Amino acid sequence: MVESILTSIEFEISLLLFISLAGYLIASRFNQSAVVGAIVLGLIAGPSFLGLIHYEGFVEGMARFGVIVLLFVIGLEFKLKDVFNARYGLIALMGVILPWIGGFLVARMFGYELASAVFIGTALTATSTAITANVLKEMGKLQTETAKAIIGAAVIDDILALVALALTEQYALAGGAISLGAISFTLIKALAFVIAGSILGTKILGSFVTKIDNSRTARKYPEITFIFAMMIAFLYAMFAEVIGLSAIVGSFIAGVSLGGIQLRNTLSYKEGAEYLHIIFASIFFVSLGILVEIKTLSFILILFLIVLTAIAVITKVVGCYLPARVLGFSHEDSAVIGFGMSPRGEMATVIALIGLGAGLISQGVFTVIVLMSLITTIITPMTLKKWLAKSKGGRGGYLELRRRY
Amino acid sequence: MVESILTSIEFEISLLLFISLAGYLIASRFNQSAVVGAIVLGLIAGPSFLGLIHYEGFVEGMARFGVIVLLFVIGLEFKLKDVFNARYGLIALMGVILPWIGGFLVARMFGYELASAVFIGTALTATSTAITANVLKEMGKLQTETAKAIIGAAVIDDILALVALALTEQYALAGGAISLGAISFTLIKALAFVIAGSILGTKILGSFVTKIDNSRTARKYPEITFIFAMMIAFLYAMFAEVIGLSAIVGSFIAGVSLGGIQLRNTLSYKEGAEYLHIIFASIFFVSLGILVEIKTLSFILILFLIVLTAIAVITKVVGCYLPARVLGFSHEDSAVIGFGMSPRGEMATVIALIGLGAGLISQGVFTVIVLMSLITTIITPMTLKKWLAKSKGGRGGYLELRRRY
Repeated sequence: MVESILTSIEFEISLLLFISLAGYLIASRFNQSAVVGAIVLGLIAGPSFLGLIHYEGFVEGMARFGVIVLLFVIGLEFKLKDVFNARYGLIALMGVILPWIGGFLVARMFGYELASAVFIGTALTATSTAITANVLKEMGKLQTETAKAIIGAAVIDDILALVALALTEQYALAGGAISLGAISFTLIKALAFVIAGSILGTKILGSFVTKIDNSRTARKYPEITFIFAMMIAFLYAMFAEVIGLSAIVGSFIAGVSLGGIQLRNTLSYKEGAEYLHIIFASIFFVSLGILVEIKTLSFILILFLIVLTAIAVITKVVGCYLPARVLGFSHEDSAVIGFGMSPRGEMATVIALIGLGAGLISQGVFTVIVLMSLITTIITPMTLKKWLAKSKGGRGGYLELRRRY
Repeated sequence: MVESILTSIEFEISLLLFISLAGYLIASRFNQSAVVGAIVLGLIAGPSFLGLIHYEGFVEGMARFGVIVLLFVIGLEFKLKDVFNARYGLIALMGVILPWIGGFLVARMFGYELASAVFIGTALTATSTAITANVLKEMGKLQTETAKAIIGAAVIDDILALVALALTEQYALAGGAISLGAISFTLIKALAFVIAGSILGTKILGSFVTKIDNSRTARKYPEITFIFAMMIAFLYAMFAEVIGLSAIVGSFIAGVSLGGIQLRNTLSYKEGAEYLHIIFASIFFVSLGILVEIKTLSFILILFLIVLTAIAVITKVVGCYLPARVLGFSHEDSAVIGFGMSPRGEMATVIALIGLGAGLISQGVFTVIVLMSLITTIITPMTLKKWLAKSKGGRGGYLELRRRY
């Protein structure tokens, strides 16, 4: 029982939750996302400044637990029909391709090798709409066609980013050898996993959940569907890893599969997963800040950060503005869509963490990607409000948003 | 990313949850407690038989997380006024002292040294009423005075067991030197922690929670009181360890402190903690089974197990029967109270785990205590039903039970 208090899990968990709470407070005061608050304060508490906590052992395990739960919860609230809207699909596709090319080229320009550059490009693809949705809500524009386009495109964007991540990892595993055959094989494998996982999930597991929900055991133990759902989340995460995809792709598909089921007798696993998410996603975001090492930022890396951030914003704005114009949105509304899709947020940081873990990007590049993600997230509300004031988009009915921080 | 799948946290968590689910199923089929199912199947999956999973690294961290959450949830549902009932107090006190003496003497008889014997005695003190409450409920006797006596005494029992645990640990830390001064000091320290922690908790933290609940941040982020409550649970656990008590004493007091607060704007942390409890207490109970090593059971240990189990039941039945008779309960009702208080369940296993961690008891003795706890839990329903059939206790109003597995 004689152990150092400062490395006990009690100390680590209290500190991580304290940092997360403080993050909420400053985020609320400066009108920022709670994710921004958690990462910035994690950065201050970690090795960059105070050195109170390190990303290792149990902290690392909990962060990993957190990111799997995070993607499972996003999956649970994901609506498959949103993906089958060609208009939003076009915006999403262009908004993924341009940033990928921009990130790849900038990385090559700064001398990074092919495998790193591919990863940096991938980290630039995903959009986080929590901040945008919040600004739209504050300005009473949440029910406009523009808002629907942003949310719809962002959902498709997540899927495309996950596919890009799967490709990137396979590419890196193959030692950076560009082979059309290998890439096709990965794409087929990823698609096969997504399709087989979704079908197995919705059909077989779905009816199994309903069976458990109506069983005699469930009446005595209403918690068993929740345990079952979390088991499926981690099982899918494991299978995704086994076939060479990222664990988060697996838990996301598990969430998508189990999202549409109505329970009658047992506790809601959606609610349960949300509660797990509150604690463990908080721990995950704080740990991202802990992983950032400001000291690794050389002059050249700071320059890289500035250029990469500029490219990230420009390519996303242009990549979304153009298809929006083609689809008939006005100049102002297209700009709103472009700037609204700019914040990177959690997905870019998740991708960066996977790249760091796989040894594909350095600690310095990881830091650059996390900071890029923070900056795009912080500047969005300012530009967006300016364009929204000019936009004439009308009001509509209630639009359900994916709940994210 | 190339790592062995079988040691990935995804595999470990899916397996632990799968074992827990299977535990629910067999528990439901054989009409046993889910805790019994989880421990028995954990035992089969662990090193004793299949060797699929080991108690180390992340599994150990999660089990520790689980036991802290478990005691926090028990604390949240704990009612301070239940402790101030002299009748139940007398039953509880005698029902703790006799088993302690019995366990201590049997351990000494089998040649264990003083420090181990003290710990074995302590492991025999705590009562788990979940099974008893369930039997009472099935037989429609939940509203009787007898049932109230069992539940009330079991609550006080938990407190006494925690105090006994604190004393035992201090005694062991002092190298097994019996000093009345040291024991008084520990008792004062434990009482000071419990009193100061409860007052600080209910008065200062309580009004702070209400303040957070009514803050501007809370309206935007309804999850912050939940994060705050969990932070307090782990902070109290840490402080308890710092002053030499067990972490679970801390999280229990944190739960007691925060249990009575009504939230108006934010998410219920009681609900949140219950959901965490579902996943992590499941993991904790399965991991107890994993820790059991059947192979360590020599002939002498099996003999010890039989004698210890017999003594555990006899001392509890007699220790509760006698005061119940004195308090005016009938012969049959007193027997119901005695047999109803016999199951040891989770608290004995928690104490055994602490003893194992502190090096005070061997792997073999740990296995004996866990098996003793299982056996007392499994045999209770049979004896209890027999005595309940004879009992004439009438029906009363609704009695709220602490919800445990």
